[in-house]
Amino acid sequence: MIDTPMFSRLALIGFGLIGGSIARAARAQGLVGEIVATARSAATRERVQELGIVDRVVESNAEAVKDADLVILCIPVGACGAATEEIAASLKPGAIVSDVGSVKAAVVRAMAEHLPANVHFVPAHPVAGTEDSGPDSGFAELFINRWCILTPPDGTDADAVEKLAAFWRAIGANVEVMTPEHHDLVLAVTSHLPHLIAYTIVSTADELEDVTRSEVLKFSAGGFRDFTRIAASDPTMWRDVFLNNKDAVLEMLGEFQEDLSKLTRAIRRGDGETLFDHFTRTRAIRRGIVEIGQDDAAPDFGRKQPQLAKKA
Amino acid sequence: MIDTPMFSRLALIGFGLIGGSIARAARAQGLVGEIVATARSAATRERVQELGIVDRVVESNAEAVKDADLVILCIPVGACGAATEEIAASLKPGAIVSDVGSVKAAVVRAMAEHLPANVHFVPAHPVAGTEDSGPDSGFAELFINRWCILTPPDGTDADAVEKLAAFWRAIGANVEVMTPEHHDLVLAVTSHLPHLIAYTIVSTADELEDVTRSEVLKFSAGGFRDFTRIAASDPTMWRDVFLNNKDAVLEMLGEFQEDLSKLTRAIRRGDGETLFDHFTRTRAIRRGIVEIGQDDAAPDFGRKQPQLAKKA
Repeated sequence: MIDTPMFSRLALIGFGLIGGSIARAARAQGLVGEIVATARSAATRERVQELGIVDRVVESNAEAVKDADLVILCIPVGACGAATEEIAASLKPGAIVSDVGSVKAAVVRAMAEHLPANVHFVPAHPVAGTEDSGPDSGFAELFINRWCILTPPDGTDADAVEKLAAFWRAIGANVEVMTPEHHDLVLAVTSHLPHLIAYTIVSTADELEDVTRSEVLKFSAGGFRDFTRIAASDPTMWRDVFLNNKDAVLEMLGEFQEDLSKLTRAIRRGDGETLFDHFTRTRAIRRGIVEIGQDDAAPDFGRKQPQLAKKA
Repeated sequence: MIDTPMFSRLALIGFGLIGGSIARAARAQGLVGEIVATARSAATRERVQELGIVDRVVESNAEAVKDADLVILCIPVGACGAATEEIAASLKPGAIVSDVGSVKAAVVRAMAEHLPANVHFVPAHPVAGTEDSGPDSGFAELFINRWCILTPPDGTDADAVEKLAAFWRAIGANVEVMTPEHHDLVLAVTSHLPHLIAYTIVSTADELEDVTRSEVLKFSAGGFRDFTRIAASDPTMWRDVFLNNKDAVLEMLGEFQEDLSKLTRAIRRGDGETLFDHFTRTRAIRRGIVEIGQDDAAPDFGRKQPQLAKKA
């Protein structure tokens, strides 16, 4: 469809699950002329070099962004401000600078204060991931049919926004634009609160006196194991999310606590009708998610089912 | 391995996900001579007849158990007492009577008071399932590498316990024996509390003023969708679980609330160290579950990943 790449040079700052997936997808789709990557740790840089997905691995953030026309920060949100300060003086005029952070308002502020006026700042958040992290965890298909939310500040060049949107669409994502504040509220409920709850219940189960860890593991197929997946996500990333989206998370936690109190009371009082009504309503949400292709229609997430040898 | 079936006649009272899976698995493994099934609703009975998995479908519980040497109640735990009363007079002397209930202490009491002394009562709980229900939802592989917990009352005939254990092993399950009270505590944390939390957060998300249902669905891949699966489980079954395991569930809820308060306080105070430490510990549980084969090692539960057409 297009003969020349969308961007001559893509710079990736950070090469974990998201950075690594962007590199693989952009490469597979021929969207970029050259990819330059960097990472904070020497071990990661070495591994990225070995993987052979990017054209060059460099040692510093400032070096990585030189002559890049698209720069994407793929690092924990708490590190975005300092990284932006490091690259500011080396950015090519007219470059698009973006990120992939799961929090927007605080990160946009932290980055914007360092950016020169001659670049286009288009913050982004691809709502996609797995529980894995590190340079080997990425894959080109991660963003397909997932949503990427752009939160451009007022006055951002419309062409730059459209160009970044086209990049995300080309690697399979749907694109939506909203304010950073609304993003943070929406993600507080669809992502941050679920992670907090999952992290909590997994440690609750691990610290009981009357139930052993071995029992928790063995009988986890009763439902618990579903929570352990997201509770195995990257601790640094999630620490930063909660520190940077405090207000929205606390607001959603308040709503959740009210609802949990209602159900707790129904259990204590033996109020079966309230429980039944509640449990009936929640089925519709699952159906809705499956219908729009945001989850697999197969039972049990389509988990692999072992086979039993037939009786001889 | 065995030439004659383990049981000449299996009676299944109820034919939902679990009953239907037992029927399919027992048939596939040639463990039973004949399967007689019944279900409360005429529509279910008709569907079971059409499916052709069992030998006979009958209209009443009492009729179903006649001459059966294994009787399994596969109905919501709240219905087990009344069903046992209905079958008591028709049971064959020496028959094994069992169930599949997710709660044991209350159910064992409710069933035991109706059972004649000349049958063997071996309560069971296969810790396996999907979010689907109804006669079409079962499959023969459901119990493979899952645990089936037996909670025989004191003095139960050891041969009867072993015979039921052998049946469950033959359809793929691992078997563990414990007291009903300990079962209820273990399952409160590995199954009942996770379901309660999932049911809560899904309705919290659905009732927000500032975030639309459409947004919740679209951005659910951020973590929320993982919770919607178990919150789509059968409402009657789960109402009965909470009504019948009230004390253990409330105890686990108390533990969970304490832990959630700790994390909430860490977020409010901006205490990144506490958050990071907490999020690091929970990874080990996920690894443990994957290592013992209770979940898939593939990222994202092994969910299917769509492919993107290569650029022309």
